Amino acid sequence: MKLAWRTKIGLGLGFGLGLWLVGTGRAFAQEGPTTAELAVAMNTFFLIVAAALVFFMQAGFAMLTAGLTRSKNTTNILFKNLMDFVMCSIAFWAVGWGIAYGTSAGGFIGTDQFFLSPVTAEGEVPVMASWFFQVVFAGTAATIVAGAMAERTKFAAYLIYSFIISLFIYPVVVHWVWSGAGWLNTYSGSTEGNWGFTDFAGSTVVHSVGGWASLVGAMILGPRLGRFGPDGKPRVIPGHNMSLAALGTFILWLGWFGFNPGSQLAIASQANADAVALVAVTTNLAAAAGALGALFTAWLRYGKPDLGQTLNGVLGGLVAITAGCAYVDPLSSIIIGFIAGPIVVFSAELLEKLKIDDPVGAVPVHLVNGIWGTLAVGLFASVPGNTGTTGLFYGGGLTLLISQFVGVVAIGLWTVATAALMFFAIKATIGLRVSKAEEEAGLDIGEHGMVAYPDLSGAPAGGEVSGALAR
Amino acid sequence: MKLAWRTKIGLGLGFGLGLWLVGTGRAFAQEGPTTAELAVAMNTFFLIVAAALVFFMQAGFAMLTAGLTRSKNTTNILFKNLMDFVMCSIAFWAVGWGIAYGTSAGGFIGTDQFFLSPVTAEGEVPVMASWFFQVVFAGTAATIVAGAMAERTKFAAYLIYSFIISLFIYPVVVHWVWSGAGWLNTYSGSTEGNWGFTDFAGSTVVHSVGGWASLVGAMILGPRLGRFGPDGKPRVIPGHNMSLAALGTFILWLGWFGFNPGSQLAIASQANADAVALVAVTTNLAAAAGALGALFTAWLRYGKPDLGQTLNGVLGGLVAITAGCAYVDPLSSIIIGFIAGPIVVFSAELLEKLKIDDPVGAVPVHLVNGIWGTLAVGLFASVPGNTGTTGLFYGGGLTLLISQFVGVVAIGLWTVATAALMFFAIKATIGLRVSKAEEEAGLDIGEHGMVAYPDLSGAPAGGEVSGALAR
Amino acid sequence: MKLAWRTKIGLGLGFGLGLWLVGTGRAFAQEGPTTAELAVAMNTFFLIVAAALVFFMQAGFAMLTAGLTRSKNTTNILFKNLMDFVMCSIAFWAVGWGIAYGTSAGGFIGTDQFFLSPVTAEGEVPVMASWFFQVVFAGTAATIVAGAMAERTKFAAYLIYSFIISLFIYPVVVHWVWSGAGWLNTYSGSTEGNWGFTDFAGSTVVHSVGGWASLVGAMILGPRLGRFGPDGKPRVIPGHNMSLAALGTFILWLGWFGFNPGSQLAIASQANADAVALVAVTTNLAAAAGALGALFTAWLRYGKPDLGQTLNGVLGGLVAITAGCAYVDPLSSIIIGFIAGPIVVFSAELLEKLKIDDPVGAVPVHLVNGIWGTLAVGLFASVPGNTGTTGLFYGGGLTLLISQFVGVVAIGLWTVATAALMFFAIKATIGLRVSKAEEEAGLDIGEHGMVAYPDLSGAPAGGEVSGALAR
Repeated sequence: MKLAWRTKIGLGLGFGLGLWLVGTGRAFAQEGPTTAELAVAMNTFFLIVAAALVFFMQAGFAMLTAGLTRSKNTTNILFKNLMDFVMCSIAFWAVGWGIAYGTSAGGFIGTDQFFLSPVTAEGEVPVMASWFFQVVFAGTAATIVAGAMAERTKFAAYLIYSFIISLFIYPVVVHWVWSGAGWLNTYSGSTEGNWGFTDFAGSTVVHSVGGWASLVGAMILGPRLGRFGPDGKPRVIPGHNMSLAALGTFILWLGWFGFNPGSQLAIASQANADAVALVAVTTNLAAAAGALGALFTAWLRYGKPDLGQTLNGVLGGLVAITAGCAYVDPLSSIIIGFIAGPIVVFSAELLEKLKIDDPVGAVPVHLVNGIWGTLAVGLFASVPGNTGTTGLFYGGGLTLLISQFVGVVAIGLWTVATAALMFFAIKATIGLRVSKAEEEAGLDIGEHGMVAYPDLSGAPAGGEVSGALAR
Repeated sequence: MKLAWRTKIGLGLGFGLGLWLVGTGRAFAQEGPTTAELAVAMNTFFLIVAAALVFFMQAGFAMLTAGLTRSKNTTNILFKNLMDFVMCSIAFWAVGWGIAYGTSAGGFIGTDQFFLSPVTAEGEVPVMASWFFQVVFAGTAATIVAGAMAERTKFAAYLIYSFIISLFIYPVVVHWVWSGAGWLNTYSGSTEGNWGFTDFAGSTVVHSVGGWASLVGAMILGPRLGRFGPDGKPRVIPGHNMSLAALGTFILWLGWFGFNPGSQLAIASQANADAVALVAVTTNLAAAAGALGALFTAWLRYGKPDLGQTLNGVLGGLVAITAGCAYVDPLSSIIIGFIAGPIVVFSAELLEKLKIDDPVGAVPVHLVNGIWGTLAVGLFASVPGNTGTTGLFYGGGLTLLISQFVGVVAIGLWTVATAALMFFAIKATIGLRVSKAEEEAGLDIGEHGMVAYPDLSGAPAGGEVSGALAR
Repeated sequence: MKLAWRTKIGLGLGFGLGLWLVGTGRAFAQEGPTTAELAVAMNTFFLIVAAALVFFMQAGFAMLTAGLTRSKNTTNILFKNLMDFVMCSIAFWAVGWGIAYGTSAGGFIGTDQFFLSPVTAEGEVPVMASWFFQVVFAGTAATIVAGAMAERTKFAAYLIYSFIISLFIYPVVVHWVWSGAGWLNTYSGSTEGNWGFTDFAGSTVVHSVGGWASLVGAMILGPRLGRFGPDGKPRVIPGHNMSLAALGTFILWLGWFGFNPGSQLAIASQANADAVALVAVTTNLAAAAGALGALFTAWLRYGKPDLGQTLNGVLGGLVAITAGCAYVDPLSSIIIGFIAGPIVVFSAELLEKLKIDDPVGAVPVHLVNGIWGTLAVGLFASVPGNTGTTGLFYGGGLTLLISQFVGVVAIGLWTVATAALMFFAIKATIGLRVSKAEEEAGLDIGEHGMVAYPDLSGAPAGGEVSGALAR
C-alpha cells in the first residue's frame, strides 16, 4: 500500500513528535541516573554496610577471646586480635584477593589482580567494594585462631601465622568455592564440571578453615600449663571477664547480619531483597535456637545454666546456619541452630578427653559447627542454590549431601596440611610457644612489659615500659 | 467527525510507532529493574539495617544493666539479657507475629500467620524483612524488665517471663496500635472506627509495656536486701562498672537511630526520606536535651553532676521522643527531651518513697517517660500523623491529647493486668525470687556456680563448675 | 509549508496519543517513584547510615580515653565524653550549622539558618539529613580534646569548652572549607577565587581542629601531678583498662567507615559508588598500615611490641588518610598510613621532651597526623579533587601542596588563637584545673562523689552520693 504524502507527513511528524515525547518522558522520569545505575549504587551501598558490620566482628572476637581468658594475658590477646586483621588487610591486598578471585588456573588458584589492580567495568559494582567485603571475610577466618591458641603463643609467631593464612591458605579455598571458576563450584546453576559444593556465606570456607587451623595450632602448641592436672584430669581455667565475653557475642551476632545477608552480594531487585530478608531471619533464628540448645544441654549435664556454653551456643548456631541461610526455611534454621547447641557442648568435652586445649571453644564453634552447617544444607535445602539441587528432606536425594561432604573433606585436608606445615615451620624457626616462666607470669608482662588492668588487679603498673606515651 | 482513511493510517502508524518508541524508551531507561522494584529493595535494605541497629540495643541493655548492678550478679544479668532476646525470637516466630499482624479479630488480636507462614505478595517489602524489624522491637520490650528485676529474680522464672511477654502480652498491644486494624488505630488517616491513638515508634507500645511490666515485677518481687535500712531509709547500692553503663548508653543511643527512623518503614520516596531525616534529628536532639535536663536537675538537687542520672536522662529523652519523633519539629523535640530529664530524677525519688526497688531506673526511663512522650504528641505534634490531627499547641485542640490518654490508660491496664497475673503465677509455682542466702552471695554463684571477674575481684574462680569448657 | 487538515488531524491525534503513550509508558516504568527521587532517597539513607556510624565514634572515644587513663578518673572521663556530644548537639542546632552552612559573609562565616530553620527544596537530600551528618562531625572535633585534657580538667570548664568549640570555633573552619563559598575552597572545580585547599573528610577540618585545641588546652593546663618527676624525667602513668582501649579503637575504625565514605555525601550514581568504594578501601588500608608503622617503630625503639602505640597507629593512619581518601590509590593509602605510625611514636616523644602532658596521645594522632595527611594530598593525589589539581607525585606540581600548606596554617592559627582565648577566659573565671587534693584523690570522688568500679577496686562505694537512684 502506497501512502499519500499527507499521511506520510502526518506519520513522519507523529514519529518525530513521539520521539520527542519519549525523550521528554525520559527526561521527566530520569532527572537522575538510570535504574541500572541505581541498582549498581544500591548494591555497592549494601556491600559496604555489610562489610562494615563484618569488620566489627573483629571487635567481637577480641572482646570474646579476651573475656574468656585470664587477665594476665589480656593485652596480648587484644593485640593479636588487632594484628590479625592488620596483617590480613595487607596480605589480602597484595596477594590474597588475586589468588581468590584472579583468573583461574584450572579451578585451583587465581593468578592475577595482585596489589588490587583489576580493571573496573562500567555498570558493575566497583571491584573496590567487592574487595572490601571480601577482606573482612578473610579477617574473620584469620582471627578465629587467636582464641584456640590463646595464652601461650608467641606474638611474632602469631603475626606470621595471620599473614600466611590471609595471603594463601584461605584465598585458595575461596577460589575453589566462590570464584565462579573453582573446581568445587562454578556458580553455573548445575554441577557440570564442578562438584556442586554449596556454602552460601562460609560455614566451611570461612569458619571451618579458621576452625581447622585452630585445631592444628592448638594440637601443635599443646595445652596451657595447669589445664590438665598431674593426674591428667582437666581443670577449669575461667576467663577473666564475662561482661566482655557477652559483649563480644552480641557484637558477633550483630556482625552476622552483615556476614550472611551481605553474602547475597546484591539487594537491588525483588529476588535479591527476598533472599536477603530470608537470610536475616534464618540467621537470627539459628542463633536463638543455638543458645537454647546449648543452654539446655549444659543445664541437664552440669546442673546449672552456663553462660559461657550458651554464648558459644549462639555462635555455634550462627556458624551452622551460615552455609544454608539462603536455602532453608525458618523452621529448618531453628532445627539446624538448635542442634548446634549440643554440638558445642559435646565437642568441647571430646576435646578435653583428647587433651586438646582450646581456651575459648573455637573448634566446637567454628570447626564442628562449620561442618554440621555445611552438611545440613544437604539435608534441609528447600530452595535450590546455585547448583540447582535441594537437600535430602526436600526431594533432592543424596546428591547435595555428597557434594557437601566432598567439599568439607577437601577443604579440611587442604587446611590441615597447609596449617600444619606452617605451624611446624614456625615452631622450627622462631618458635611457636612462649617459655614456661613467661606463661606463668602472663604474656602481657613477658611479651609487652605491661598489664591490662594496673589499677584494678594490683599487678605491677607496667613500669618496665620505657615508652613515650604515658600509659 | 469522520476521519479520512489516510489520516486513520497516519494515526494508526503513529500510534504503533509511539508504542514502539515508548518500549524502546523504557528499554533504555530500564536496563535494570523498575523503579518500583528498586523502591521495594531499598525499603527492604532500610528495614534490615534499622533492625540490625535495634538488635544491637540488646547489647546496650546488657552493658547498661550489668554496669549499674553489682559484680556478684553480673553473669546472671548478662545471661538474662541474652536469653530474653533468645526466648523472644522463638516466641515471636511461633505466635507473637501472628497475634500482632495476623488477620484481626475485632481489632483486638491477630489470628493467623503463626510460625511465620504468611504469603508474600510480589512488589512488596518481603514479610521476612518486616518480621525481622518487628522481632527486635519485641526484644526491646522484653529486655527492659531485666533491669528492674535485677539482682534477685530466679533465672528460670525470668526465662518464662520473657517468653510470655513476647508471645502474648506485647503482640496484643502491637495489634491494637500498629496492625492497621487495631481498635486504637487503623492507619486510615482519620479516627473513624478507631481511637486515633498515635505512637510512631513505641513510647507506649514498646517502652511503657516494658516499663509497666518492670513496675509490676519490681513490686511483686520486693526490694533487694539492704536497699532500705531497718529504719526504712533508702541506701545507695552502686553499680559495679560505670564504663559498661556508659558504653551501654552509647549503644542504645546508636540503636535508637534504627528504632525511630526505621519506624517510618520506608525511605524510597522524597516524603519518606524527609520523614526519616527529621526523625533522626528529633531523636538526637531529644537525647541530648534529656541529658541536660537530668544533669542540671540532679546537680541542683544533689550538689554534684551525676553520671548515672545523666545516662538515664539520655535514655529518658530517647523514650520520650519515640512516640512523636516524626510529628514534631526540632525545637519541640528539645523541649520534650529536656523535660524527660527531671522526670527521670523525680520519678526515681518517688519510687524510693514508695519503697519500690528498681536497680537501674527502668520505670523512670521507660514507663514514666513513655507516658510523657506519648502525651507530648497530643501537645507538640505539628505534622498530622496517620490520624490526621495535630496537637494542642498546633491548633489541633484536645482531640489528639485525649486519644493519647485513652491509649496510655488502655495499654497500661492491659499490661499491668497480664503482667501481674503472669508474675503471681510464676511466684506461686516455681517461685520468682532467689533465697536470701543466694542473694547475699550473689546470683552468679547461686544460679551459675561461677563469678564474672575471677581474676579481678579475688572471688572464687568458679571451681564448682564441672563444665567442659575451660572458663 | 501549509499542512492539509487531514494531516493536521493525524498530527494532532498522533501527538495526543503519543502523550498518552508516554504517560502510560511512565506509568508502567514508574509504578514507584522516579529515579531522581530514588537517588535522593538513597543518598539520604546513605547519609543517615554514615552519620549513625560516626555517632558511634563517640562511644569509641569514650572507651579509648577511659581505657588509657586511671580508674580513679573513669567516671569523669566518661561523663565528659558523653557531655561533649550533648553540648555539641545543642550548640550545632542553635548556631553552629548556620555559621558553617548559612549564607556566606565574604567566605568567612555563615549568617543564617540558625536554630535549624532552613528551607528544604524538593528534589534534594533533606537538610535534616545533612545536619545529622554534620553534627556528628562537629561532635568528633569536640570530643578529641577530652583525652588530651584528661585527669585534671574541671567538669564545668569542660562543658563550656565543648559548647564553644561546637558553636563557633569548628563551624567557622567548616565554612571556610566545606560550605561551597569559603575562602579556602569553593567547590567550583578550580582555584579561582579560593585557595584550593582540599580536605575530603576532615584531616584538618575535624582532626587538626580538635588536635590544636588539645595542644593548647594541655599546655595551658600543665601536666598531671607526677607525670614528670622532680628531676624533670617523664614517668609512665599507665591506663587502667586495655580492653576498653582496644574496644574503643575498633569502634573508631568502624565509625571511620561512616566518616570517610560518608563524606562523598552521595552514593546514588556510578561515579559516587565508585568513589565511596575506593574510600572504604583506602581508609581500611591506611588504618592497617598505620598499625604496622607504629608497631615496628615502637618495637625497634623500645624493644617490645606496644599495644597502646599500635592502637594510636591505627588511629593515626585513619586520621592521615581522611583528607585524601578519595583522591589516592590503594598503594598510596598504605604509604600514607604507614608513615602515620612513626609520626605517632615520635610526636609523643617530642611532647614529652616539651613537658606537655597528653594522656592519650590526642596530639600525635589528631594534630600531627591531621597535618601529615592534609599535606600528603599535595603529594599523592592522583584523582583531581574538587579544585581540579593532582599532587606532586602525579604531575600536579607544587600547586596543591602549597594550597594544603596554606589551609593547614590558616586553620591552625585560627584554632590556636580562639582556643587559647577560650581556655584563658575559662581559667580566669571559673577555673580550668581541679585542686591538687582532688587530682590526687581522683576526679570521680572530687567532681562526682562516686567511683567507677566500687566492687572491683575496693574504693569507697560512692556513699557520699545522696542520689535517688540506687547506684
